[in-house]
Amino acid sequence: MAQTRIITISREFGSGGHTIGKMVAEQLGLPCYDKELVKQISTETGFDEDYIEEVGEHAPGKSWLAYAFGIQNPTVPDRGMSMNDFLWTVQYKIITELAEKEPCVIIGRCADYILKGRDDCFDVFIHSDMATKAERIVRLYGETNQSPEKRLTEKDKKRKVYYKHYTGREWGMSQNYHMSLDSGKLGIEECARIIIEASGMKK
Amino acid sequence: MAQTRIITISREFGSGGHTIGKMVAEQLGLPCYDKELVKQISTETGFDEDYIEEVGEHAPGKSWLAYAFGIQNPTVPDRGMSMNDFLWTVQYKIITELAEKEPCVIIGRCADYILKGRDDCFDVFIHSDMATKAERIVRLYGETNQSPEKRLTEKDKKRKVYYKHYTGREWGMSQNYHMSLDSGKLGIEECARIIIEASGMKK
Repeated sequence: MAQTRIITISREFGSGGHTIGKMVAEQLGLPCYDKELVKQISTETGFDEDYIEEVGEHAPGKSWLAYAFGIQNPTVPDRGMSMNDFLWTVQYKIITELAEKEPCVIIGRCADYILKGRDDCFDVFIHSDMATKAERIVRLYGETNQSPEKRLTEKDKKRKVYYKHYTGREWGMSQNYHMSLDSGKLGIEECARIIIEASGMKK
Repeated sequence: MAQTRIITISREFGSGGHTIGKMVAEQLGLPCYDKELVKQISTETGFDEDYIEEVGEHAPGKSWLAYAFGIQNPTVPDRGMSMNDFLWTVQYKIITELAEKEPCVIIGRCADYILKGRDDCFDVFIHSDMATKAERIVRLYGETNQSPEKRLTEKDKKRKVYYKHYTGREWGMSQNYHMSLDSGKLGIEECARIIIEASGMKK
């Protein structure tokens, strides 16, 4: 295969995909774009980082005008464009530029789709069984008054709808990725090892 | 994870998943059930092997009676049961028994679903891009008057419908398997290597 320069990691909420992506980046000595990506979108648009994180997982509904009253936003180019569509175009541009710039790991944000024209990407999807994910989110984020199963299902449903809306593809379908791994079965460290080896980026 | 005893391989037509399954079995010194499975279903039911192979990829339509005139079939237990449902029950029983008997590799036939209650299975899905699959089937099976793309799409559509009918799940969804690999990107030998390592069955 063509020499891999970029690894994209998509993941179910609670699957440890984020941790796996960080591990892969660290072990390969690559920059990892996750929060960093949100920061760049924030700088470019003037939107709050938390807000970008939230909107980045919701399919468009409300128009820009519905949001406009509480938010500083100096750069929305077209009042008819929904907030989500606007953020999508910025995200698209930033991810495309990042991929040009340097080898890296990109977590989430439909990077697998945005970079699909390149042959130097290795696209990974991480998922896991419900019990392992539930145990993980309670351990990491604590209990809430919603059951962990419900939190997991709702978050992933949003990701699915968002992905479908902007890519036209089914989130989690094997065919969208070069490799999909069950982190509950394989373990977090083993997933990182498998990805590193398969990517061919190990020195 | 629990010690793996059984590897199931599901695959897109033309992805080389069958070859990968054979390689994995050979390198691990395990029996590989593919044609062998069809043979066993044939012995148990009295149906012709070619017929079983074909029906095994079609969702039920015709009833048993519609088939009955041309085929010797001493053991159909219930005249109201469709041919496909009957073959499914036999296949289900044979795969369940095989898994009890000895460590092995099972290719196709919804084994991932049939054995989902066991924790000693490692379920793999192999897919590939259209161009690589088209090149492969023309090289292996020759040209026909249908385009290779059409042959691929039709065969996989049947597998998808069959899988959905008997399992209620989406064929090719990452979450149904412990590992999904793009054999076009990774190569056939590399897929076999990755599966063997990840299964933990290497001696």
